[in-house]
Amino acid sequence: MNNKKKLTNISSLGEFGLIDRLTGPIKIRNKETVKGVGDDAAVIDNGHHMSIITKDLLVEGVHFDMVYTPLKHLGYKAVVVNLSDVYAMNAQPLQVIVGLAVSARYSLEALEELYAGMLLACEKYKVDLVGGDTTASPTGMTLSITAVGKAKKDSIVYRSGAKPGDILCVSGNLGAAYCGLLVLQREKQTFKANPNMQPGLNDHAYILERQLKPEARKDIIEMLQKAAVKPTAMIDISDGLASEVLHICKQSMTGATIFEEKIPVDRRMAQTAHEFNIDPTTCALSGGEDYELLFAVSQDDYKKIEANEDIHPVGYITEASLGSHLLTSSGQQVKLTAQGWDALR
Amino acid sequence: MNNKKKLTNISSLGEFGLIDRLTGPIKIRNKETVKGVGDDAAVIDNGHHMSIITKDLLVEGVHFDMVYTPLKHLGYKAVVVNLSDVYAMNAQPLQVIVGLAVSARYSLEALEELYAGMLLACEKYKVDLVGGDTTASPTGMTLSITAVGKAKKDSIVYRSGAKPGDILCVSGNLGAAYCGLLVLQREKQTFKANPNMQPGLNDHAYILERQLKPEARKDIIEMLQKAAVKPTAMIDISDGLASEVLHICKQSMTGATIFEEKIPVDRRMAQTAHEFNIDPTTCALSGGEDYELLFAVSQDDYKKIEANEDIHPVGYITEASLGSHLLTSSGQQVKLTAQGWDALR
Repeated sequence: MNNKKKLTNISSLGEFGLIDRLTGPIKIRNKETVKGVGDDAAVIDNGHHMSIITKDLLVEGVHFDMVYTPLKHLGYKAVVVNLSDVYAMNAQPLQVIVGLAVSARYSLEALEELYAGMLLACEKYKVDLVGGDTTASPTGMTLSITAVGKAKKDSIVYRSGAKPGDILCVSGNLGAAYCGLLVLQREKQTFKANPNMQPGLNDHAYILERQLKPEARKDIIEMLQKAAVKPTAMIDISDGLASEVLHICKQSMTGATIFEEKIPVDRRMAQTAHEFNIDPTTCALSGGEDYELLFAVSQDDYKKIEANEDIHPVGYITEASLGSHLLTSSGQQVKLTAQGWDALR
Repeated sequence: MNNKKKLTNISSLGEFGLIDRLTGPIKIRNKETVKGVGDDAAVIDNGHHMSIITKDLLVEGVHFDMVYTPLKHLGYKAVVVNLSDVYAMNAQPLQVIVGLAVSARYSLEALEELYAGMLLACEKYKVDLVGGDTTASPTGMTLSITAVGKAKKDSIVYRSGAKPGDILCVSGNLGAAYCGLLVLQREKQTFKANPNMQPGLNDHAYILERQLKPEARKDIIEMLQKAAVKPTAMIDISDGLASEVLHICKQSMTGATIFEEKIPVDRRMAQTAHEFNIDPTTCALSGGEDYELLFAVSQDDYKKIEANEDIHPVGYITEASLGSHLLTSSGQQVKLTAQGWDALR
């Protein structure tokens, strides 16, 4: 080992640090490439309109556990999380392409269930499954889905357009998917300890569905369009509110202030969080996998949508010099920090 | 187990059987979707031109072995095999999107090497790396690359247009990538038996490069365009000549006759095949990973390109009722069979 350069453990960089290092040397050559890395999706100029392309991987043992993940749900979720990225660009998804690496321990029937879930999501969101690659894997399953969408050039919303004074809005509620995961993990442990134990899942139907079968907020994109409101910045909430606010602030070169009391949480999520001795706000800020939308709108535009009960103003955009903070219910100002995935740690 | 339905082992179906079963229930909804599953790539109508989208997975332990695969080569190859699918549609690749699942045993420096290889391929083929997803993996590495290209509507070549009488042509030579793999696998065994042994790779530079750092035949597509020749059907040779001829025949509803003596093989490949007691023709028919192009052209069009020394007529298209055969050098007629990947077996 003497002559070897000391190597850097990727877990020491975290997700975002690693991505920054790897994507740093990238150069864009083609005029058709409007947006490369750094947003929810890439944007390609097709002359006629813009194409939106995004990819998400789901890896067994990291993103899902076969012990408690029905394959049909997994297929559904794998498609939905990709569509969510397309909606987050204010675009319409039209196609998905499926890469599937599976070990021989999966049966045809299991994979048919997986496909049935993918096709159910395709049906619901009116997208076409147009191809992909199916291959062997030494262990487990990896799903790699690419979603393709389209949008008019001037309707695309990036992470980068937020301006000081804009209102930050969140759709739906946050933290429930993470609490659903906690329940599933607990029941897995209980089952391992005593396989005859019945799983105690009945009381948790809502948060389990949020974890196992999330939906993408197509309806919010349609609502914004009807209201003729174009957000100044938008992102989907896959890693938790804190991380996504920071993405918008970084790309928009702004700060932001979030009010804890304004963060939408569902009663059933809060109940479960308390069961686990976790602060519901922590679940909302860092839990992730809610696939709600976070967007910034001008104050004038906010008035056009404020009557919508599913849209929640959680804070506002500030000058970059003010930083990004949470104002807690007890009046404290806490700096927002991103967790991203820490599965590598 | 009494009440359980008997499950079907996916290895009993093979790659193509599995794909047929899984993609059977797919319906196409959107008018923009011109071609879904069943060709080298999907085709999407953008009004202005067509977008071509394709995806290939590379899985550690299935498609590559870290013992003998330099990461820079791996990155290069991962991009090239996807571009090859776009060229096989007679289209121009413009963007790639990278999905990377890695275990924590990979260092930042290792992943930087991988990216350097991907970016080198991007530079050579003038495509942009526009995004993707980087995530953890419990074991090993999975690379999922999506390539996006464009083409004029009437220049796209599918697998399905071959007509009886058309000449089947192959670019370059076949079987060398597979022989390169055999050498690498042998040296791995030798090294395991005696780690002080120097690997005997020097004599095999050509076939090793064919395996570790293949190129996509952009030049052939450009040559065809200059000659104003549009193949009637085309596919890239990733699974071996036999499998690809059968794909064209199936999609075109034709048969084909291939002449063993016409199959282009490199002297260095043949030499290695003999070392391993394998028939060079078998390597060409079933070895795979050559990433050459197989295409059918009308007899008139063939005359326009026959002077090109890198284009080899290997046979011709027949009526479907005649089946797909190899005529061996000794005059025997042998039915062509597809192997596809059998890694699941």
